[in-house]
Amino acid sequence: MTVTTSNGAGLGIALDRAAGVPLYRQIADSIRRQVQQGELAAGSQLPPERRLAGSLGVDRSTVIAAYRELAADGLVEAHVGRGTTISQPKTADWHGLRPIQRLDWQQLLAPAVAADPLLDELGALAERSDVVSFVSGIPAPEFYPIAEFRSLLDEALGAGGEGLLQYCPPEGFAPLRTAIAGRMTHQGTTVSPHRVLICAGSQQGLYLLARALLEPGDTVVVEAPTYHGALLVFRSVGARVVAVPVDRHGLDIDRLNDLLGRRPVKLIYTLPTFQNPTGVTLSLERRQRLLETARRHGVPIVEDDPYGELGYEESRLPSLLALDRTPGGSVIYLSTFSKILFPGFRLGWIVAPEPVIARLAWVKGLVDLDSNPLAQWAVGEYLRRGRLDPHLDRLRAIYPERRDRLVSALAEGVGSRLTWQRPAGGFYLWARLAGAIRAREVLTEAIALGVAFVPGDLYHADGGGRDTMRLAFSALAPDQLALGAERLSRAIMTVSDRRTRNRESAPRPPTRIV
Amino acid sequence: MTVTTSNGAGLGIALDRAAGVPLYRQIADSIRRQVQQGELAAGSQLPPERRLAGSLGVDRSTVIAAYRELAADGLVEAHVGRGTTISQPKTADWHGLRPIQRLDWQQLLAPAVAADPLLDELGALAERSDVVSFVSGIPAPEFYPIAEFRSLLDEALGAGGEGLLQYCPPEGFAPLRTAIAGRMTHQGTTVSPHRVLICAGSQQGLYLLARALLEPGDTVVVEAPTYHGALLVFRSVGARVVAVPVDRHGLDIDRLNDLLGRRPVKLIYTLPTFQNPTGVTLSLERRQRLLETARRHGVPIVEDDPYGELGYEESRLPSLLALDRTPGGSVIYLSTFSKILFPGFRLGWIVAPEPVIARLAWVKGLVDLDSNPLAQWAVGEYLRRGRLDPHLDRLRAIYPERRDRLVSALAEGVGSRLTWQRPAGGFYLWARLAGAIRAREVLTEAIALGVAFVPGDLYHADGGGRDTMRLAFSALAPDQLALGAERLSRAIMTVSDRRTRNRESAPRPPTRIV
Repeated sequence: MTVTTSNGAGLGIALDRAAGVPLYRQIADSIRRQVQQGELAAGSQLPPERRLAGSLGVDRSTVIAAYRELAADGLVEAHVGRGTTISQPKTADWHGLRPIQRLDWQQLLAPAVAADPLLDELGALAERSDVVSFVSGIPAPEFYPIAEFRSLLDEALGAGGEGLLQYCPPEGFAPLRTAIAGRMTHQGTTVSPHRVLICAGSQQGLYLLARALLEPGDTVVVEAPTYHGALLVFRSVGARVVAVPVDRHGLDIDRLNDLLGRRPVKLIYTLPTFQNPTGVTLSLERRQRLLETARRHGVPIVEDDPYGELGYEESRLPSLLALDRTPGGSVIYLSTFSKILFPGFRLGWIVAPEPVIARLAWVKGLVDLDSNPLAQWAVGEYLRRGRLDPHLDRLRAIYPERRDRLVSALAEGVGSRLTWQRPAGGFYLWARLAGAIRAREVLTEAIALGVAFVPGDLYHADGGGRDTMRLAFSALAPDQLALGAERLSRAIMTVSDRRTRNRESAPRPPTRIV
Repeated sequence: MTVTTSNGAGLGIALDRAAGVPLYRQIADSIRRQVQQGELAAGSQLPPERRLAGSLGVDRSTVIAAYRELAADGLVEAHVGRGTTISQPKTADWHGLRPIQRLDWQQLLAPAVAADPLLDELGALAERSDVVSFVSGIPAPEFYPIAEFRSLLDEALGAGGEGLLQYCPPEGFAPLRTAIAGRMTHQGTTVSPHRVLICAGSQQGLYLLARALLEPGDTVVVEAPTYHGALLVFRSVGARVVAVPVDRHGLDIDRLNDLLGRRPVKLIYTLPTFQNPTGVTLSLERRQRLLETARRHGVPIVEDDPYGELGYEESRLPSLLALDRTPGGSVIYLSTFSKILFPGFRLGWIVAPEPVIARLAWVKGLVDLDSNPLAQWAVGEYLRRGRLDPHLDRLRAIYPERRDRLVSALAEGVGSRLTWQRPAGGFYLWARLAGAIRAREVLTEAIALGVAFVPGDLYHADGGGRDTMRLAFSALAPDQLALGAERLSRAIMTVSDRRTRNRESAPRPPTRIV
């Protein structure tokens, strides 16, 4: 093929004089792209320099420079009397133009903890409108206080607002730290603003804590099951994760005590209130024993409390932080606005002894310097103006309705094939399959029927919990909950029936050589 | 002292029935606080249960429970017939009520790279209205496009906007990735949105890269001088930092080549355009040689480019990313909206080969899950609507005026005692003191005179550059620049004169045994 086009447009060259890129480079890049994309084959002839220059409205020297760059790359060849033609590819790796060593990026990456691809897949399912997703632990979006935050942001940026678009201290925007300290003090924990650090959600809080406190080889005690993201964080810094079971009253303190007696432990990580994923709450008596046990062994406690304000009943247990009597403190408290307002502002907070806050601020400075001060101002004002409590009152009325809708639809649909403990707060129903059915098997069936959930093994450090699942009901409207429960029930029945049939038709498992 | 008050108010107890904290705890906590603060001395008598209950309007059982908790803590003693009194402290550590082991938090912290406290001090100075601060590398606040972002946020939240207050993928909000890819492609680099990851500013970009690519003991080549925050990040992950000098044309490629031949290097970190802190730009010829050198040794390059769009002159050099011809790429590009819009939204981006993006997304998921999608939407829209270029045009006219104001005021004030290379873009004037005067010595004098800057040794991996300083002129109005230059000149003259005097009065340095 020969390019006989008499103007640059025929070559598909569009110059942008405002781009700040030299024109000769724009010409060369355009031709290079066309060669790489196969639009200009080897042997094709480029327009003479003078003609292309004329049609593009550039100096001839510009085209000469472009052709020269392409020649230097081995992409074109100039022949006296015959003009410039596209070269034959010299190597199979035409794309790179020269036989240059390719960097092995996979090889260059530092080791990482293997991530379960299932979570990404579940995330993608949540986007589909034909799937009822029990996956996401988010507040009910139709109740986000959007109008109030719209007006707060407008107010902030209307009144100048440059100061809220700057950097801010790594510890956080002072008025938000004060508002949080005030709120927590009001709830029975005396907290000074100096002991509060703002972080980008609980996830960052956990990460900062892990980096501040853990060294490779350190042991962290977690609950079985526990928050998946915490397992990843602890492992990513090289810590060993040891799990202690949770029963209907929370963490098993006797087992914890045994464990602390057997090996050195750096940190205890617990979600004592409306736990993720089980919804279980640690009893007052166990809270006291947990504190005493940890104190006796000199081990600090990280209390992760995203759901503490989302209890559906009147009574409320004091946090571990509030109960702690260790001089200087033995509890680091962590919470987030993601579960009580909305996740998008990426704001959470840590309450810790001041030496820990100082170190956390240092890590925060490394990781991202600080969090968005405009968002911090807006949330601080929302607290200061007393808007959070009415908002929470509304949610505390809605979530138990949703829980009950889900529970009754499931009870009707699957009977005793699925069991659970009704949570008294939070976002999650934790359910167990009867008859040794695996949740991942049900999940495959469920996705085909248009419903998704998180299989419980993801919340276990050791691959346990294969017969469990987490169903987040907080963000689903009642009819969606019913529809999802109905589909899930069918999926469970299908798997259960298949099991029964297989057992009847094949009483002994076939011998398999693997 | 005996408490004879007949009502609860006399005990300073204020109950909050809406607090969600059990009333008995509120009573106990209040008394405990008063004891700890010395308001209730040992031996003081508490009101009889029935009387306190009456005055507080609570059940007698509530007061009994409160006194019981205080007794269990050893804080009060109940005597038949004599009522309840405050106990004698059992240990010197009265605050903790029981002789409990205090956790040694400093001991519990993981090791960290020592931070220079100077930066915090300089940050505090920047807050003072009587100090002209050349410290902060931020855009001119009076030109932040606040009105436009106010209107964008209003638009987003007016149209529902729940979707922008949710979690978003760790790689970033797709429309912003697309807008960035489009802008970079327009500038002569073909970038697909899949190769773009959104991060919380350049600082987080650097952190994610360090975590994705570096292992303890790996060597990173940096420039001398270079961005202080990068030095901290690389060191925080255990990397060794080796510096190669920058001259007036940028990184010394011959020295780099020697170094790469001598030892294995994992990464080259460079700021090729309007470098922080020197303002120097790597020449086109050196860019080509840098790429060839790195390629020959199989070492990837991290191109940090926060200031690339802030050149004051017409011509613009292509980025290393644009010049890179290595198949699969050898350059990871990093930039931020902090320097071209404002820092507060905490948004930057990385362009990298897809295997690197996948790993960065994993690290981002650990560190904070994702960045604020509302802010991402707003910046994406700002780009899509073509608002950034007019904004940058405005800034590109203002900054050289500020640079010139600073330069002429300094030239007038200090003459040859301070020298510099006039930057052609960016935020910084990098200046060198004549006569072996140390910048930190000048800084002490300068602060006393009401002006602050960053001493150059902070930008060196090895403590070099003690006679240098960085002066950020971008955020200061012309009269402030003149005032700051005048004060700085006086500080330099003062130190310089003191030197001369000392030299005259003490011609030989005293012998010192260290």
